[in-house]
Amino acid sequence: MRGIFFRFIFTWAVVSGQSNTARVAPIIVVHGGAGNITKDNLTEEAERERRNALLQSLRAGYAILEGGGNAIDAVVAAITILEDSPWFNAGRGSVLNESGYVQMDASIMYGPTMEGGAVAAVERIKNPIKAALMVMQKTKHVLLVGPHADSFAQKNGLELMPREYFIVEQSQKEKKGETVGAVAMDIYGNICAGTSTGGLRNKMEGRVGDTPLLGAGTYATKSVGISCTGIGEYFIRVSAAARVAFLVESGKRLEEAVGTVLHMIKQMGGRGGIIAVDSSGNYVMMFNSKGMYRGVKGGKASIEKVMIFDNEE
Amino acid sequence: MRGIFFRFIFTWAVVSGQSNTARVAPIIVVHGGAGNITKDNLTEEAERERRNALLQSLRAGYAILEGGGNAIDAVVAAITILEDSPWFNAGRGSVLNESGYVQMDASIMYGPTMEGGAVAAVERIKNPIKAALMVMQKTKHVLLVGPHADSFAQKNGLELMPREYFIVEQSQKEKKGETVGAVAMDIYGNICAGTSTGGLRNKMEGRVGDTPLLGAGTYATKSVGISCTGIGEYFIRVSAAARVAFLVESGKRLEEAVGTVLHMIKQMGGRGGIIAVDSSGNYVMMFNSKGMYRGVKGGKASIEKVMIFDNEE
Repeated sequence: MRGIFFRFIFTWAVVSGQSNTARVAPIIVVHGGAGNITKDNLTEEAERERRNALLQSLRAGYAILEGGGNAIDAVVAAITILEDSPWFNAGRGSVLNESGYVQMDASIMYGPTMEGGAVAAVERIKNPIKAALMVMQKTKHVLLVGPHADSFAQKNGLELMPREYFIVEQSQKEKKGETVGAVAMDIYGNICAGTSTGGLRNKMEGRVGDTPLLGAGTYATKSVGISCTGIGEYFIRVSAAARVAFLVESGKRLEEAVGTVLHMIKQMGGRGGIIAVDSSGNYVMMFNSKGMYRGVKGGKASIEKVMIFDNEE
Repeated sequence: MRGIFFRFIFTWAVVSGQSNTARVAPIIVVHGGAGNITKDNLTEEAERERRNALLQSLRAGYAILEGGGNAIDAVVAAITILEDSPWFNAGRGSVLNESGYVQMDASIMYGPTMEGGAVAAVERIKNPIKAALMVMQKTKHVLLVGPHADSFAQKNGLELMPREYFIVEQSQKEKKGETVGAVAMDIYGNICAGTSTGGLRNKMEGRVGDTPLLGAGTYATKSVGISCTGIGEYFIRVSAAARVAFLVESGKRLEEAVGTVLHMIKQMGGRGGIIAVDSSGNYVMMFNSKGMYRGVKGGKASIEKVMIFDNEE
């Protein structure tokens, strides 16, 4: 693993001609939602498919980081795989709102510049995370909502799909994780965070949760990147992702910061999970529900782990 | 003034039969947007009308507080007056988006419970702040966007208006303040904050700024309430309103907290203003632009002041 790691960095440096020196071990963490997930209420197939998708997501993101690529590209690659999988509530496989169709939210934020982009209540964009990136890179705005955001994405070359594409049998019958997300740090220490979701099952039409709101479901600074999952309304009310960042900036350890915010959410009656990476390479995947689809690849210890249940290490 | 103040509290206590004791001097601060506002680029009529609307807004909100009413009702009453005035960019008088029509955003948050509600990209609700309150009180959600939010408001008895109602000549030719907002503390120390806007002139269709996002344009906790105005994208990226709250919670004085956040926004290239009230009754109305329509009524010193320019005290 380390051999491959250094070979890629070397290749990248030669090919790109850039003089930046590799400084940190790149790392990516992903989640596929937190919720009432136990061995008992998960079929073998569902468990296997989701573990596999998380692994593919981690590897796609990490390959980019390992090749000297930017954290933004790693996050988009990782989330795209989870959006395309019918086994998560984001992109294909999103749950239905109370009127029986899909409305999706996504956001991305880049720590070094604190720039971000997001879309909400979009109905036909195949990969909402790519549309979020496009808002960040091609407009002076941060958030576009509704059919206008679908049109914007289409005009800029993103793929729209018929509404039926997003609806798969699996997502309609099973209580499952609510959101997907990724946080990556590249070899230059740049941190990026992104999140994508179909939102709450049976939500009102036009309801927007924390996922597309920078500071609520997603946040990134020079010091830390955060992606959240859970009942979005609670994450909005506590400004969950930004609160983790503030606590880290004010000197709290990453684990303590995330724990404090999840505790606050629990006190209010909410639940969910948070993944985060700080600029020292520490990572956290924490939740106050029964389980969280999650994984990590890279870092100082060059690990590769995918987990679902509470007691997995 | 004080005589009236205590008479109202007495009346309220008798009528309502509640045993809560008045503890604090109620206060309300309002703003009508920050921007490139100077004596030179403001007509006499515009200055007079806006000063008058701010005064009416303050008095409407304060009358509720003085009568023992809740901070939520005071904020809604104060903002409704500014939305109804054609002289501010919120409700009637909103600016047009790039396609020539109005899309409005609003939010409200109540400190004691940290509950909130918001609407974004609504096109026909006469008073978006009332729709935001309705989302908070009648749904399990925090944010509804687009025509769905208009329909929700109508179904629940709020007034919709034809599109032409919102478009007034004045708002189309003049560069003016961008948003209206209010923060109030009632006699029981409950703090509420709200914000309402037509957004950025010539914004893309579906663009949503900081105004309807709790943590960005509006935030309230037990300790402090905040309403922001300015180029919304910067306020979103720094989680401006939540950041003020965090800084206050971590021990900073209110003025220092607001100053820190406005400085951060300026460093990023943004500008705007913030009004805030803390649980000790301190208030701040600060901006890094040429001027801000603003006013305050009540508080320990029982003042009533409306200001626009930089050098007014």
